[in-house]
Amino acid sequence: MEQLVLHEDPVSGNCYKIRLVASHLGMPIERRFYDTLKGETRTEDFLAKVNGNGRIPVLQVGDRFLPESSAACFYLADGTSLIPEDRFDRANMLRWMFFEQYNHEPNVATLRFWLSFVGEDRLSEAQKATIPAKRAAGEAALLLMDEHLRDREFFVAGRFTLADIALYAYSHVMEGGGFDRREYPAVWGWLDRVEGLPGHVSIDG
Amino acid sequence: MEQLVLHEDPVSGNCYKIRLVASHLGMPIERRFYDTLKGETRTEDFLAKVNGNGRIPVLQVGDRFLPESSAACFYLADGTSLIPEDRFDRANMLRWMFFEQYNHEPNVATLRFWLSFVGEDRLSEAQKATIPAKRAAGEAALLLMDEHLRDREFFVAGRFTLADIALYAYSHVMEGGGFDRREYPAVWGWLDRVEGLPGHVSIDG
Repeated sequence: MEQLVLHEDPVSGNCYKIRLVASHLGMPIERRFYDTLKGETRTEDFLAKVNGNGRIPVLQVGDRFLPESSAACFYLADGTSLIPEDRFDRANMLRWMFFEQYNHEPNVATLRFWLSFVGEDRLSEAQKATIPAKRAAGEAALLLMDEHLRDREFFVAGRFTLADIALYAYSHVMEGGGFDRREYPAVWGWLDRVEGLPGHVSIDG
Repeated sequence: MEQLVLHEDPVSGNCYKIRLVASHLGMPIERRFYDTLKGETRTEDFLAKVNGNGRIPVLQVGDRFLPESSAACFYLADGTSLIPEDRFDRANMLRWMFFEQYNHEPNVATLRFWLSFVGEDRLSEAQKATIPAKRAAGEAALLLMDEHLRDREFFVAGRFTLADIALYAYSHVMEGGGFDRREYPAVWGWLDRVEGLPGHVSIDG
């Protein structure tokens, strides 16, 4: 495989997903750090060379750049046991990855970023006004996960896949956004199962 | 293949994506209609049987249910020419599909829904407060697409893939959300190319 470089901010759960996949697959990956709070992913150079969207993570494969954490995870795991071979299971894995980016991350991760990194007093009035809706939507996402996990070990196909990695990244730091895992016991049990797997690394590892 | 049933609201671009994939692949698909404005996807029966997330589209495959439009598109197109065989291209296609759900749909599609279907005067104050941010983010998404398409016929791999279908669905009705295709000439040209392909059907087709 070509050389892999992860353009990332180490506190970002989206970046962590990619490192978690690489760790489970034993793939060496070089890390390049950016501080998003200091605007380091909005420089002219970054926008021109790495990602015109001004966001991290971006997975660099040789001289090609792949934004979007879930796409980068799929690239690394393509052809491995982290992606089910069965057609329905594979699509169902993507279903949870899209759910994560649409229903979970904009609420659970954004509230963590705002409350634990930016600071509530530094938010704009427009941002503050969206907190109740994000709180409710984040709780709904965690509850849906909890219901799904009540009779399942992992999200899809009875085993650990990219769906678990995608949803683990921000669920395991839900407290940073003011969510409480004691309200989601099946999610809590699943977080423990993911952490017990060989190949697991922590977000600050 | 097992019988395919699309649980959908015919005005939804997310539902339209799945019909567009099925049309390009010549797959027959049965349609079941719900009016989201009347809460028909929030009934006890729908939540228990079709999707606990209370959202459409859901693709029913035999007796299994697959929510998330992009996952359903992937299921239908798996193994066909709508998904590139090359590993990087395949991940890059997913990159644009995740971009669509994260950066495009919550802005371009939500403003269309609010302004053309709900009506601005019926929005909550919290919703109204987010309009400027959604306007700016929608414009940024369309501009990024426009820059990407300036020297490309389609989004990925030099040919028509699921990335084009995912991004076409709400881009071609951008005017419903107050966006103007004349500001994105490369997007406009690409919209015309997509519409000229054999197998194309319109959103109300």
